[in-house]
Amino acid sequence: MNIDDLVADPSMSDDRTLGRLLSLIEDGADGSHGLVAQLYLQGGTASTLGVTGTPGAGKSTLVSQLVFSALEAHPDHARIAVVAVDPTSPFTGGAILGDRIRMGDHSGNVQVFMRSVANRGHLGGLAASTPAIVAALDGFGFAEIMVETVGVGQAEVDVASACHTTVVVVSAGWGDAVQSAKAGFLEIADVYVVNKADRQTADQTVADLQSMLEIGPERSWTPPVVPTVATDGVGVAAVWDAIKNHRTHLAQSGDINARNGAIARATLKGAIEARVSSVADAVADEDIERLVLRTTDPWTLAAAVVAAR
Amino acid sequence: MNIDDLVADPSMSDDRTLGRLLSLIEDGADGSHGLVAQLYLQGGTASTLGVTGTPGAGKSTLVSQLVFSALEAHPDHARIAVVAVDPTSPFTGGAILGDRIRMGDHSGNVQVFMRSVANRGHLGGLAASTPAIVAALDGFGFAEIMVETVGVGQAEVDVASACHTTVVVVSAGWGDAVQSAKAGFLEIADVYVVNKADRQTADQTVADLQSMLEIGPERSWTPPVVPTVATDGVGVAAVWDAIKNHRTHLAQSGDINARNGAIARATLKGAIEARVSSVADAVADEDIERLVLRTTDPWTLAAAVVAAR
Repeated sequence: MNIDDLVADPSMSDDRTLGRLLSLIEDGADGSHGLVAQLYLQGGTASTLGVTGTPGAGKSTLVSQLVFSALEAHPDHARIAVVAVDPTSPFTGGAILGDRIRMGDHSGNVQVFMRSVANRGHLGGLAASTPAIVAALDGFGFAEIMVETVGVGQAEVDVASACHTTVVVVSAGWGDAVQSAKAGFLEIADVYVVNKADRQTADQTVADLQSMLEIGPERSWTPPVVPTVATDGVGVAAVWDAIKNHRTHLAQSGDINARNGAIARATLKGAIEARVSSVADAVADEDIERLVLRTTDPWTLAAAVVAAR
Repeated sequence: MNIDDLVADPSMSDDRTLGRLLSLIEDGADGSHGLVAQLYLQGGTASTLGVTGTPGAGKSTLVSQLVFSALEAHPDHARIAVVAVDPTSPFTGGAILGDRIRMGDHSGNVQVFMRSVANRGHLGGLAASTPAIVAALDGFGFAEIMVETVGVGQAEVDVASACHTTVVVVSAGWGDAVQSAKAGFLEIADVYVVNKADRQTADQTVADLQSMLEIGPERSWTPPVVPTVATDGVGVAAVWDAIKNHRTHLAQSGDINARNGAIARATLKGAIEARVSSVADAVADEDIERLVLRTTDPWTLAAAVVAAR
């Protein structure tokens, strides 16, 4: 089936065509903005979950386990998508192969769709393409969309926090709570997971995080700190319960409105970045040469380029 | 002295006023684009060095050592700047404190200026502000500008590779060469450093990287792979030599022109991102509400917002 048919009737989706569509969107191909815009208008029904954290903390293993939880929670055969952000990051160590193996738990399960986002070098980059991929999957009627970051920079954290619920995964013994607070984790986490909790340092890490979370301004939701041993599945049910509790809280408190607004604003920002990226790439070599010769400057040229859009 | 005086005569710079100016530029304050534009026109004389690599590989230690090399190479008292990108990244572990201690090697040395860039959450973010900070320091007449990434995501790698020479630091035993190639390291590295080379795995890591670098398309420069033990200063002189060799190669081959063009284009892209960022932040709550209600979509709104600029 072709892509226009697919957008017109997402229920007809086959995953291969869906994959092609997502590639067009990720590449910002001609017409792809119209496609994702149409899907956006059909969406708004998915629950989105961002998972970020320290390298080697076991994010992928946890996500794979959470997919099992989500499948159990959806006996109606609703579909689950996992969006792995930037698997070609230079800094994943051996994670890429490991991810494939772990997500292999779900290969052959037609309810589960896995997608990688890795458009290095585009202006806007992950911040532009990840919300578009999520919006498209939402428009297709996926019930659960999990956004897992593999790379660990600013952009990756930003996309993980632009979800309904954000899970931050750290290893037991990773740094201390003060470090975690300085790092901005306390601000983005709705659920904290202390993985590898079979280590001796786990209790202290959990306690430190809890006391840090109790300090600070009053808030309507205090992130629970959940110890896990993701490789054995220990604690995964508790993480899923915490996620469900957070969703209930969002709905009952009305915080869901502010959260949806923040997600919409992040998606808009990505769309703006994508819109100007083609302009930036198309700047003529003569203009670049003028920059090199310092007969003009990037800020003056940027103003002209944006104004000409 | 005030900031206008400082821009008019950078030689009068005092570091406190310079620091204030860089903060204005990083924040994208009113008028700051004019200031950095003026500095850009005065610049083009600095050698820039990007340093990126795996977490915990010892980047900061190496950079501190390379500052000593640069000081020796500039007996004329030319000034050296270190720009540490995103020290508030959530994923630095204990690096922040360590950086301060190590860069403390140079505190009290008036030749050395240290600056952190950490504007989380801005549209454009590091990709917008780091090139502006580098352009400003260049305009001030700094002879050497080292850009060290602390965070390890896509944006951080992009800013480190938008320099005349890019050094990639990995730990001995970190992954294998295939992994490194998949990660895109081979494309951005002008000099490879295998740190912690006192480990048994170091020789194999060096050999693997070298053989990977020998495969692939013909290129005018083959990145040398330099083993170091940065904490003891072992191999640092060889890294500095490799950097100098790369600079000589750029000049003699004429590759410097393409490199300057790429740096100019990256700076322009950042300037464009910065220009649209205020627009995105200023989008009215009513428009965001329309997104949440799905009566419009982010791509249509983005087109309207950019067109109205």
